[in-house]
Amino acid sequence: MNLTVLGCYAATPRTITNPTSQVLEMQNRLFLIDCGEGTQVQLRKNKIKFSKINHIFISHLHGDHCYGLIGLVSTFMLLNRENDLHIYGPEGIKEIIKLQLRLSNSWPVYKLIFHELTSLESEVIFEDKKVIVKTIPLKHRVYTNGFLFQEKIGERKLNINAVQEYEIDKCYFQNIKNGNDITLEDGRIIPNSKLSFDALPPKSYAFCSDTIFDETIVPLIQDVDVLYHESTFLESEAHLSGKTMHSTAKQAAIIALKANVKQLILGHYSTRYPSIEIFQEEAQTIFANVLLADDGKSFTFE
Amino acid sequence: MNLTVLGCYAATPRTITNPTSQVLEMQNRLFLIDCGEGTQVQLRKNKIKFSKINHIFISHLHGDHCYGLIGLVSTFMLLNRENDLHIYGPEGIKEIIKLQLRLSNSWPVYKLIFHELTSLESEVIFEDKKVIVKTIPLKHRVYTNGFLFQEKIGERKLNINAVQEYEIDKCYFQNIKNGNDITLEDGRIIPNSKLSFDALPPKSYAFCSDTIFDETIVPLIQDVDVLYHESTFLESEAHLSGKTMHSTAKQAAIIALKANVKQLILGHYSTRYPSIEIFQEEAQTIFANVLLADDGKSFTFE
Repeated sequence: MNLTVLGCYAATPRTITNPTSQVLEMQNRLFLIDCGEGTQVQLRKNKIKFSKINHIFISHLHGDHCYGLIGLVSTFMLLNRENDLHIYGPEGIKEIIKLQLRLSNSWPVYKLIFHELTSLESEVIFEDKKVIVKTIPLKHRVYTNGFLFQEKIGERKLNINAVQEYEIDKCYFQNIKNGNDITLEDGRIIPNSKLSFDALPPKSYAFCSDTIFDETIVPLIQDVDVLYHESTFLESEAHLSGKTMHSTAKQAAIIALKANVKQLILGHYSTRYPSIEIFQEEAQTIFANVLLADDGKSFTFE
Repeated sequence: MNLTVLGCYAATPRTITNPTSQVLEMQNRLFLIDCGEGTQVQLRKNKIKFSKINHIFISHLHGDHCYGLIGLVSTFMLLNRENDLHIYGPEGIKEIIKLQLRLSNSWPVYKLIFHELTSLESEVIFEDKKVIVKTIPLKHRVYTNGFLFQEKIGERKLNINAVQEYEIDKCYFQNIKNGNDITLEDGRIIPNSKLSFDALPPKSYAFCSDTIFDETIVPLIQDVDVLYHESTFLESEAHLSGKTMHSTAKQAAIIALKANVKQLILGHYSTRYPSIEIFQEEAQTIFANVLLADDGKSFTFE
């Protein structure tokens, strides 16, 4: 599992910082999460293959999370994309994109498939053989969802020594990986546990931005491997976090602690602060495993 | 008169080039012309004061000329702008901006005034004491206008030596600048030509992008000081320029020659070419005074 942060600063794009966008690589799938202005240039800078992005998740319709989407959709068009593109986001996102395509008299050859979200409850919005994605309803000034990306439990790993010892033919290997016992030609039944190891534990990633401090999300993100939680402010500006429906670094850490996550990543920093290290310091008074997102930073979780 | 090119490359924004946007400074007014994605960051990089921009002119609704507008409108909001903002552009531009503001539940405190254009004839769209702006109807794949910015003839310059010689009181100076003769106390009439010099000749700037080669614009831009004319292609790709309704460098030069402009600036280069100098070479086979626009380049015309 790999996370590349394309942008993680609040509000307006600046010469040195970018609004929210990140790319999650999970089981060889690339998921683009949020798409602030300039995301397509950040994708290029970080050498992410445009053609590998088939699913875009938009948390909410504030500009710093979505104003780069129409540009990316158009660039896909100019690059002669053919694969379907799925866009998941709040109701209205389809109207925004379609209106601009209509007025520019440009229509993609590829299929643009919108999945508009309206539910206030968590729901499964994507599922394939290896990954499942659920919404995390968040409380912000407009309708907002976080997203929970979960690997499914994978195949068991073949115990090479054991299959050689029992002289088991290759054609049974998939059967073993699927967890089945094997009957040898002499009639002996070899239990699967002797022929394979447990699959790697499935990884999970929760993206929670933008949101006020809200403990009701804790059960939805319980025990995740990695939680990205917004921390627009520090506690010294807690009065602003309530008013603008954002969180402080300390509040993000409280959520991480209560949800027993393995790793917290902070981001969506207000640009009023001189450095981002102070966000880490504040969060670590509550929760130890805190990393800082930053534009262009990549995290690998083994 | 000063022109700052924020972006002048066709199609998609890239790590090293930006889509169309430029700032024209004329008589202390800043006019923003087109607003591709990333324009607000380019404004910051080029140290242009956001608060001095009160008029934005959008040529057409292709993304590389307007996808940065909603971000700029939003940033003005976050910067607590109070001045009115006038936006001139094709019909539909208001719907694009208003829809996105409505769905993000964000409304500017400042007044956003749209001037939607539909005419196929040149028309005056802005006029104040010192400057007049007219449309230049262009032929492209969607409804498109170029813009002609003209200084008005300014006040005459006072001949300091002459007014001292005739002992003319200061309270008559404005009268003299306005071109009037002066009657002295002894009854003598001093003609204005003895008391003042001609005003500086008014400057003019024509922005023509995007457009197919179209000689019908020649009378509209006759004798302008500076013509920015798109040159997406070279003659070697003339077949593409017709198909996509763009111009070649040579065609831009033919327009400059026929319109008897003083200076041609080329831009809107396709990114297929290894360098932009070849555009200048091609144009100069037809017309001598050719400059090349480039991102971040500033031109001053005295």
